[in-house]
Amino acid sequence: MIKLQYNVDSKRISTRIEQLAGCSSTSVGVTRLPFTVESLEAERLVEEWMKAAGMTVRKDGLNNIIGRYEGKNPTASVLLIGSHLDSVIEAGKFDGVLGVITGIEVVQTLRDNGVILDNPLEVVGFCDEEGVRFHSTFLGSKAIAGTFTAEDLERADENGITIAEALKGIGIVNPYDYKNARRTPEELLAYLEVHIEQGPVLEKENKPVGVVSGIAGATRFSFEIIGKPGHAGTVPVAIRQDALLGASDLISYIENIALENKPLVATVGKLTVSPGASNVIPGLVTGTLDIRDLNVERKQKAIDAILAESHRIAESRGLQIKFDQVMEVEPVYCNEGMIKLIEEAISERSGSVVSLVSGAGHDAMAMADVTKVAMIFVRCKDGLSHHPDEFVTEEDMGVGAEVLYSTVIKLASKQ
Amino acid sequence: MIKLQYNVDSKRISTRIEQLAGCSSTSVGVTRLPFTVESLEAERLVEEWMKAAGMTVRKDGLNNIIGRYEGKNPTASVLLIGSHLDSVIEAGKFDGVLGVITGIEVVQTLRDNGVILDNPLEVVGFCDEEGVRFHSTFLGSKAIAGTFTAEDLERADENGITIAEALKGIGIVNPYDYKNARRTPEELLAYLEVHIEQGPVLEKENKPVGVVSGIAGATRFSFEIIGKPGHAGTVPVAIRQDALLGASDLISYIENIALENKPLVATVGKLTVSPGASNVIPGLVTGTLDIRDLNVERKQKAIDAILAESHRIAESRGLQIKFDQVMEVEPVYCNEGMIKLIEEAISERSGSVVSLVSGAGHDAMAMADVTKVAMIFVRCKDGLSHHPDEFVTEEDMGVGAEVLYSTVIKLASKQ
Repeated sequence: MIKLQYNVDSKRISTRIEQLAGCSSTSVGVTRLPFTVESLEAERLVEEWMKAAGMTVRKDGLNNIIGRYEGKNPTASVLLIGSHLDSVIEAGKFDGVLGVITGIEVVQTLRDNGVILDNPLEVVGFCDEEGVRFHSTFLGSKAIAGTFTAEDLERADENGITIAEALKGIGIVNPYDYKNARRTPEELLAYLEVHIEQGPVLEKENKPVGVVSGIAGATRFSFEIIGKPGHAGTVPVAIRQDALLGASDLISYIENIALENKPLVATVGKLTVSPGASNVIPGLVTGTLDIRDLNVERKQKAIDAILAESHRIAESRGLQIKFDQVMEVEPVYCNEGMIKLIEEAISERSGSVVSLVSGAGHDAMAMADVTKVAMIFVRCKDGLSHHPDEFVTEEDMGVGAEVLYSTVIKLASKQ
Repeated sequence: MIKLQYNVDSKRISTRIEQLAGCSSTSVGVTRLPFTVESLEAERLVEEWMKAAGMTVRKDGLNNIIGRYEGKNPTASVLLIGSHLDSVIEAGKFDGVLGVITGIEVVQTLRDNGVILDNPLEVVGFCDEEGVRFHSTFLGSKAIAGTFTAEDLERADENGITIAEALKGIGIVNPYDYKNARRTPEELLAYLEVHIEQGPVLEKENKPVGVVSGIAGATRFSFEIIGKPGHAGTVPVAIRQDALLGASDLISYIENIALENKPLVATVGKLTVSPGASNVIPGLVTGTLDIRDLNVERKQKAIDAILAESHRIAESRGLQIKFDQVMEVEPVYCNEGMIKLIEEAISERSGSVVSLVSGAGHDAMAMADVTKVAMIFVRCKDGLSHHPDEFVTEEDMGVGAEVLYSTVIKLASKQ
């Protein structure tokens, strides 16, 4: 049992996680889409907890909920702590909400300990990060970072309801109020986010929390391998132009490239084989390659190597292999100074610090457009998320809150 | 140009191939299903050519057409030469009919040369080999070999018409007449078949014809590889349980096993990947393995090696791999004595002899149940068949007929 230092109440965090999990439109897992009855119910709870922690609470024009804990200097730049309150369909209880509740817990603890910081502290619960309802991610944090646009208002859900209409439905009659959500770089000191890891690294390393060095950039390709179909009985294996054999070479090579360039990750997630009959040699394979790394140069070198290998495979097997890039997301680097503060906070309790690259997107990605960002990851069971079995121990949530507490104190006191 | 020795008329073979190609229900390619207007028209032509070659013609109870060229000893066992008159949908012109027309050409040449053999010679055009209409192959040759059953009469086409009803439609009122088609081992000397290769080996070897050593046995498996799905961004490659990486290892290994055990062929023709999203690590792969060889022991050793490797892959990657056998077809060995006669006939004109294993099924497979069999393969362009572009040169057809002629003379004279 790790001893908590700052009177953070991990039991309270855990209880609140359970209460928010009750705000769901499904009985299996948590389903809480933005601008719904469930999300309003969750925001009501969050508002109550923010007020209990001594915050003043408001909602901005895109229905992000924001609690403010005043600093010694009310005109100083704001240290923003947040994460999202929405979920995917039949999700787990922790993804997103853990960051909001931990933020509230830190303010509650500051207040309980009688600490007033130099800078004002704000805790934000973003309305939509997952992008499930309107097929576009980071809606809430984009509004605050100023990258949400008027066109976004016209995005519709599967019932044809646009964001503008959904906002009207929860009482925001002028959808252009989203413009008031925007914060300028001058207004903000930094953005800090606690989130479950959604991967298995901390569990493997046996650490409750880790510091995030950045959010990986991602490049996505679709590829096509054209060979020659033929009779599985009559064409000798040595002279086949089997598209699936070419695909197997390529997939194995991609794995090796990833292993040689850790923590780069590369995934062939989709693969179709045609004609797809047990007695016909595959003539066509299509697939996708998703490759992610914080280090843009290393990622590009890996991509170049994979493309070069695809030419070699095509040449030696008499195939045609074509790659089409279909997506490119730039990486986001966490702020070095903030990383250092988080590392200090972690090493105070666990000795060694695990640094992780986030391979998944987070609100911090959108917030990086307007201020410096950093993230603290909390261990989750089996690396599982977006699933009802997603699980974080109460103890680990406590450690996450302690690390955030320590980081916030140093960050908002030394300006 | 290879000089023909026996006055075989390759131009006549070629012209007849074109005439039979006209008996088709589709304008693209040849479509001639059994017991149809097109097949009756083809049989009328075949009957005419058989009669012109001095044969007496009859049809048996399953509508196989049979021409008989009497021997010096009318009670001696019959040397049967044949192939099938039906086709797949939009097929080529040569598959099947080449064997029937070559048989007729040999008889015509014997007659033109004034040759009467010791044994009676019969040329058969089987009603159905492809199995397209009633989803069961070798119907015609099975009736002659005695392996067609009363249940087979109830097989229905896609319009619900059974074989019994289809036979009635072309004038065979008692479907049980199929029993009269049966020949006993004592009645038959042997079965000989000329067929296009349906593969690229002879073309690669630059030979017009080859001798078939046997028809490969085939084992078919379905397999399932169970891994662990996960986020393509958050799970380090080194600790993934990626089912598709396991599949790639397995597919590459299967190719190597085939290359080490030529002429064994092995094919993974079907492969599905789940969940099949570009940002999700594959958790499940299903597929098929089709493995063929004339040598049953070698095939079994290859299967054993593949299964053992699948265990190693499963172990090292943390996967479950399951194989289920779904089909087993025994190989058929061509008769050694007949192979020798065919080899002599081939070496008389091309010096060296190419021996092939047939990886596709043929009527000879069914006929092997009642008599000894042998096959002569004729080169086809690009190894292509079951396609309108299927092509055999007139010259190669002439060589095929010459080799058959020489083989028939030796076979039916030395008894």
